[in-house]
Formats: sequence, structure tokens, C-alpha cells
Amino acid sequence: MRSTEQLRVLVEEYLDELALTPELHGQAESVRYALVGGKRVRAVISLATVEAAGVDAEAGLPAAAALELVHAFSLVHDDLPALDNDAERRGRPSVWAQHGEAVAVLAGDALLAEAFRLALSYHVPQVGRELAQATLGMIGGQYLDITGSAPDEATLHKLKTGCLFAAAVGTALWVAGVPEREQAPWRAFGDELGLLFQIVDDILDGDGYVLAHGEGGARALADEAAARARERLAHVPADTSTLVDIVAGLSTRTS
Amino acid sequence: MRSTEQLRVLVEEYLDELALTPELHGQAESVRYALVGGKRVRAVISLATVEAAGVDAEAGLPAAAALELVHAFSLVHDDLPALDNDAERRGRPSVWAQHGEAVAVLAGDALLAEAFRLALSYHVPQVGRELAQATLGMIGGQYLDITGSAPDEATLHKLKTGCLFAAAVGTALWVAGVPEREQAPWRAFGDELGLLFQIVDDILDGDGYVLAHGEGGARALADEAAARARERLAHVPADTSTLVDIVAGLSTRTS
Repeated sequence: MRSTEQLRVLVEEYLDELALTPELHGQAESVRYALVGGKRVRAVISLATVEAAGVDAEAGLPAAAALELVHAFSLVHDDLPALDNDAERRGRPSVWAQHGEAVAVLAGDALLAEAFRLALSYHVPQVGRELAQATLGMIGGQYLDITGSAPDEATLHKLKTGCLFAAAVGTALWVAGVPEREQAPWRAFGDELGLLFQIVDDILDGDGYVLAHGEGGARALADEAAARARERLAHVPADTSTLVDIVAGLSTRTS
Repeated sequence: MRSTEQLRVLVEEYLDELALTPELHGQAESVRYALVGGKRVRAVISLATVEAAGVDAEAGLPAAAALELVHAFSLVHDDLPALDNDAERRGRPSVWAQHGEAVAVLAGDALLAEAFRLALSYHVPQVGRELAQATLGMIGGQYLDITGSAPDEATLHKLKTGCLFAAAVGTALWVAGVPEREQAPWRAFGDELGLLFQIVDDILDGDGYVLAHGEGGARALADEAAARARERLAHVPADTSTLVDIVAGLSTRTS
């Protein structure tokens, strides 16, 4: 069972060496720019799930990379002037600030299409199906966010963040060949991760859950989410030690 | 063998009744707006290919609709102020002019993700693979166009237009279960359609090929492309009568 750091290095190397579609021509430069940095949390969850299910993490690399590409796609488009108007991302100019708005729109498009190309490298369509469903949920969440029309905080975060975390576990189950009838306990675990990630994100940024519940309240909510995730893992019939480490890491991270 | 008009009505009804992912919430409105109008050329080619290959056109509807969604995605993003800055499309305000830039970015994203959801409703991943490859080619073509960096006219049009026409035939072959070793003559036909469509488009708009070759020169090039497409069809061992009609229709269309 590899450590989260070993899995992170594995996905980082895979993304570094990823061959983009040649037909992208010069557009590839902004796609690579958008892929630099990031903690690779979603990919590591996916690879750790593949390993916990008894399959080599290497088999999960295209799906794990696809998750990171979808995440990067969402950041590139969300940062656009017409949406969140963020000129900075991960301590550097965001894609539109560096490459211009037109190329940034296309960079997001290319990241999404490359993500599906990777997800479709598997023999079964289910990996791609999970990714399409999660992507549509994220888009719906972003719509609710920018239009201020979310029915409540939980719905918003479930869509904007939770979908892709759930898909990190879901895609891994198909990669590892876990039969559908045995997937429920794994998925129950995956469903808890997005909320945990989001609350801790808000604690680090001092917004969202902190504004609504105070810092102590948000910390308590994060601890409850982590406890639920560990409780769910206890029902997964496998060596989930690395997944337990991931929950601890998500709960106590400082960046 | 159904006529092109019967196939067009079939895909129109399918798109009208298409259930979008509920998680899109209010974003769905702009997605539907973007799908109104259009000649459904790519979808009809795909359905006619499915029928020529001996399978009911109905089986091809999700793939045919996916092609139209990818086409609509490309129009919505290309029309954005940062790209072609077109405020009108099909005689109505373009999506950004009607719904605002932010929602238009998300509408294009949602169309692309819904297209993959449809393509992934098949049991084999190849339908989605064709779509991903064509989408990446289109994005590369749009990059070459807006940056003025295309090596030549042929490369540009092959990417911007040809890829998706070729995919209309390619996806249909997988839907119809045509074995890979028998696909070559069909694909040779599909490769001719994009160029024919593009030249006639330029004749109708008085730009592109007309500027480069004069109206007579462009007409001659269109006739040659149509002749090559018919010649390719002659090598396809099937009843290709509707596909022959499509070539005639593409060649002589007036809108």
C-alpha cells in the first residue's frame, strides 16, 4: 500500500509526461500552464481507492489524471473575467491573465475534452460516465453560485466540490473492477470527502462556513465530517490505511 | 431507408425531448436556447450512415444528438466577445447576448459534458473516443484561426469543420457495429464531407474559398469534393442511397 505522498508523485510524473493531442497545436501551451501546481487531492484519493480495492495504482493513472484535468478546466473557466474575474491562481497569473481570454476559454475546453479522452482509454464506458455526471454537477453548482440562486449552502457545495470527490472514488471502483453490488460502502465514503475538503478550505480562507458558523463551529463541522468519513471506511472490506491517512490529511491540512 | 428529411425530423424530435441532467438547475435554459435551430447536417449524416450499415436509425440517436451538442458547444464559445464577438446566431441573439457571458461560458461547457454523457450511453467506449478526438481537433482549429497561426487553409478547415463531419460517420460505424477492418471505405467518404460543406458555406457567405479562388473556382472545388465523396461511396458495400442524397444536398444547398 503506497503512501499518499508516493501516490502524489506518481500522478505528478504522469501529468508531466502526458502526451496531449497533437491537433491542439499551440493551444497545448496554455493547457500545460493550467496543469502546473495543485495538490492533486482528487487524483490521490482515486489512486488510493484503486490500491485499496486490490489493483495496482498505475492502472488508475488515466482516470486520476482525468479528474485533475476536469478540476483544472473548472478553475480556468471560473477565473475568467466574466465569472469570478481572478487574475491570480496558485501564486501565478491565471490562464486568462497569462494567455488572454480567448485562449483561456479554449484551454478550459481542451482540458475537458482531454479528460474524456483519458477516461475513455478504458475498455468500459463507466469511468467516462462518472466523469460526465460529475462535470455536469459542477457546472450546475457554478451556475447556482454566480447567479446567487442556490437553495442552500449544502446543495451548492455538494455540486461545486462534492461531485468530483465522489467521482474520484467512483471512477476508481470501475478501474479496479469492483462489482456494482459491492460499491455502496465505498461510495458512502466518497460522498463525505467533498464536504470535509470544503469546510477546511473555508477555515483556511476565513470565508464560507466560517462566516456562517464561526471558526469554532466550522472546525466542529469539519471534525464531524472526518469522523463520518472514517466511520464509512470502517464498513469497506479492504485495507483502507492510505484512505484513512487521506482523511486525516484533509482534516488537518494547513494549505 | 429513410429520407434525409425524415432523419432530420427524427433528430429534431429527439433533441426537443432530450432530458438534461437535473443537476444543471437553471443553467439548462441557456443550453436549450443554444440547441434551437440549425440544419442538423452532422446528425443526419450519422443517422444515414447507421441505416446504410443496416441498423435502425433510432439506435444512432444519442450519438447523433451528441454531435449536434458538440457543434452547438463550439458555436456558443466561438461567439463569445473574447473570440469572434458575434451577438447574433441563426437570426437571434447569440447565447452570450441573450444570457450574459458567464452563463454562455457555462452553457458551452454543459453542452460538451452532455454530449459525452450521450456518447457514453453506449456499451462501447469508441463512440465517446471519436467525439473526444473530434472535439480536440476543433479546439486546435479554433486556436489556429483566432491566433492566425494556421500553416494553410486546408489544415484549418480540416480541424475546424472536417473533424466533426468525419466523426459523424465514425461514431455511426461503432453504433452500427461495423467491424474495424471494414470501416476504411466508410471513413474515406466521411473525410470528404467537411471540405464540401466548408466550400459551399464560403460560396453562400462570399468569403474564405471565394476570396482565395473566386466564385467560379470555389464552385469547381465544391464540385470536385462532391465527386470525390460520391466516388468514395461507390466503394462502400451497402445501400448508400440516402448518403448519395446528402452529398447532393450539401453540394446544392442555398442556405
